Amino acid sequence: MQSRYFTLHAHPEGTPARELFELETAELPALAEGEVRVRNTWLSVDPYMRGRMTGVTTYIEPFTLGAPLEGAAIGEVIESRAEAFPEGTKIRHMGGWRDIAQLPADRCERLPAFDVPEQAYLGVLGMPGMTAWAGLNRIAEMKEGDNVLVSGAAGAVGSLAVQLAKARGGTVVGIAGSQDKLDWLESRGIKAVSYKGRDAAQLTAALNEACPEGFDVYYENVGGVCLEAALNTLRVGARIAVCGLIAGYNEATPSPGPSNLAMVLIRRARMEGFIVFDHWAHYPTFLEEVGPQVAAGELDYEETVVEGLEQTPDAFLKLFEGANRGKMLVQL
Amino acid sequence: MQSRYFTLHAHPEGTPARELFELETAELPALAEGEVRVRNTWLSVDPYMRGRMTGVTTYIEPFTLGAPLEGAAIGEVIESRAEAFPEGTKIRHMGGWRDIAQLPADRCERLPAFDVPEQAYLGVLGMPGMTAWAGLNRIAEMKEGDNVLVSGAAGAVGSLAVQLAKARGGTVVGIAGSQDKLDWLESRGIKAVSYKGRDAAQLTAALNEACPEGFDVYYENVGGVCLEAALNTLRVGARIAVCGLIAGYNEATPSPGPSNLAMVLIRRARMEGFIVFDHWAHYPTFLEEVGPQVAAGELDYEETVVEGLEQTPDAFLKLFEGANRGKMLVQL
Repeated sequence: MQSRYFTLHAHPEGTPARELFELETAELPALAEGEVRVRNTWLSVDPYMRGRMTGVTTYIEPFTLGAPLEGAAIGEVIESRAEAFPEGTKIRHMGGWRDIAQLPADRCERLPAFDVPEQAYLGVLGMPGMTAWAGLNRIAEMKEGDNVLVSGAAGAVGSLAVQLAKARGGTVVGIAGSQDKLDWLESRGIKAVSYKGRDAAQLTAALNEACPEGFDVYYENVGGVCLEAALNTLRVGARIAVCGLIAGYNEATPSPGPSNLAMVLIRRARMEGFIVFDHWAHYPTFLEEVGPQVAAGELDYEETVVEGLEQTPDAFLKLFEGANRGKMLVQL
Repeated sequence: MQSRYFTLHAHPEGTPARELFELETAELPALAEGEVRVRNTWLSVDPYMRGRMTGVTTYIEPFTLGAPLEGAAIGEVIESRAEAFPEGTKIRHMGGWRDIAQLPADRCERLPAFDVPEQAYLGVLGMPGMTAWAGLNRIAEMKEGDNVLVSGAAGAVGSLAVQLAKARGGTVVGIAGSQDKLDWLESRGIKAVSYKGRDAAQLTAALNEACPEGFDVYYENVGGVCLEAALNTLRVGARIAVCGLIAGYNEATPSPGPSNLAMVLIRRARMEGFIVFDHWAHYPTFLEEVGPQVAAGELDYEETVVEGLEQTPDAFLKLFEGANRGKMLVQL
C-alpha cells in the first residue's frame, strides 16, 4: 500500500513559499509486530509547526528535510498487528501531513468517548483546547473574577481561552483583526477590540476603554503591538501566559521587543512561556472538565476546514494570514 | 531646632540636572506626643528614587515638588516623646535627604543587634541586602546548584546576589562594567563578564564562554543589552527576577525592548518583576540568615561613601554613572 505525504525540501526564511512543500508517494513496508496502519480522516495544521521548519532545535526537534512532515491527525486503523488497536479503532496520533500513516501502537491514542465530532479531538478537546486550559489555569493561575485579556482571541486556542475565562472571570476582552472575528467574540459576550491599523498607544487606549480597571491575566498568542499594549494595561500582580508569538514567526530579522518591559517591574507582573506538551499529564483533568461542556454545546468552537491532502500546505500558510476562525483543519 | 533638607523643584526629563535639587532650611515644630527627633548619621541614595522623581505613581508615590525628599536613613534619637525610642536610640527610618528628621515612632525601627557598623543596615542588612535575598529566594526560587547570572553584579544589590548565589550555586557569573568591579567579582570567585563595548551578540558569546551550560536564574538589575544577551543563555525552565532596569531609568524616550523575547517561550522561562517592600514580612528571616554571615565577615560588602549632606544629590547622580561599587552612602 502507498502513502502520500508532504515533505519540506528547504528551510524557509520569512514566510514559507508554497513551493517548499512537496507531495511525495512511497510504498509502505509490511507492518511490523506492534504497529498499526491508519487511514487519516483529519489533519491538524498549527502555528507551532513553523518553529519546526527552521532547522534549529527550539522546544521541539526540527523537521528533517525530505522526510514526511509530522503533526496531529485523526484516523481509523485499517490494519493492525497491535492487540490494543484492532481494525476500525479511531485514534489520534502525530503522523499527519499524509493520507496513510504507519506507526507503533505506543504512539497512538484511542479517541475519548464524548458525543462530539471526531475532529474535536484535534481542536477544542485536543492540543489547542488543552493549551487554552493549561495557560489559563496552570500558568496564569486564573482566579474567579479576574479580568482577562486574550490576543489572537478568535483563533483555535484564543477562542477557547476567552470562553473558559468568561465562565469564571470578570471582564474578558479579546483582541482580533477581522470584523467577523470581532462579531463572533461579541456574540459570545466577550468585549472585542481590533488591533487593525492601531499602534501600541492606540491599542492601549482601546483596551483601557474596554476594561478601565486593567487586567489580572493576559493570555498571549501574538506578541508585537498586542504585547506592548497589554503591558500598559496590567494590574499589580498580573500574570502573562505566553503561549505563542505568531507576529514574529515568519520574520527573517527579529523585530525589537516592547519598549515598556519596565511595566513588568512596575506592576510586579509575571510573564511565563509554556509548551502544552510539558503539561500533558493533566490532559485527563482537562478532558473531564471541558469534555462534557463541549458535548453539551456550552462551548462554541469554530472550525475552518480545507478539503483534500493536496491543500495541507495552503491550510498551514493561511494560519499566518489570520484567515482562520477557530481551528484550521484539513479533511481527507 | 532647624532641619536642612533637599527638595526637588521640577520633574527631571532624562538624567536629572544637579540644579533641580535645592538645599533648604526650616525651623522644626515642637515635638508632638509619640514623635521623635533624630540626628541622621547616614543617608541612603538608591536607583529606585529616580522613579519617584517623575511625578507619576509607579509602584510607589512620587516625591512632592518642594517637599523634603525621602529615603532610608540611620540616625540617633536626640529628643523623644515616644517611650519605645528614648534619647540615644539608634534607629532606621525613611526621613533621609536631611540632617535632622522628626517623625512618629511608628515609622522608626530600632537597629538590630548584630556586631556590624550601623550603616550596614542601609546596605547589606538593609533594603539592598533584602532585595538580593528576596529576588533569589522568593522570586527566582533559586535551588542548590543552579547556574546564576547577575547584572549590575558589583552594585549594592548585585554584589550581595552574586555572593548569596555563590554559597549555594553552580556557576555564578556577574556582568559589570569597570575593571575594578570585574576584579572585585573575580576576587570573590565569581566569573566576571564586561558589557562594555559589546552588543547583545558579543555579550551572548562572552556569557556562553563563561557558562556553556546556560543559566537557571538571571537576576536582572540593568535591562538593555544585558537582558537581550541573558535571554539567549537561559536553560529550560529558567527564572528571571527583575529587580531593576537601571539602563532605562533616565531615558526621555524609551528604547525598544529585546528582539528575542521569544526565548521566554522557547525556554519556558518565567520573568517576574518585584518590589522588595512587598516581601518585607520576610525581613526577619533574611536577617536571621544573613546577619550572622555579615557579622562573621563571610560576606564582603563594599561601600562608596560621600561626605556631607550637601553632596547627597551628587551621590545620587553617581549611581547612574556606574561610579559606585557596592552601596552608595552619604555620611553626615
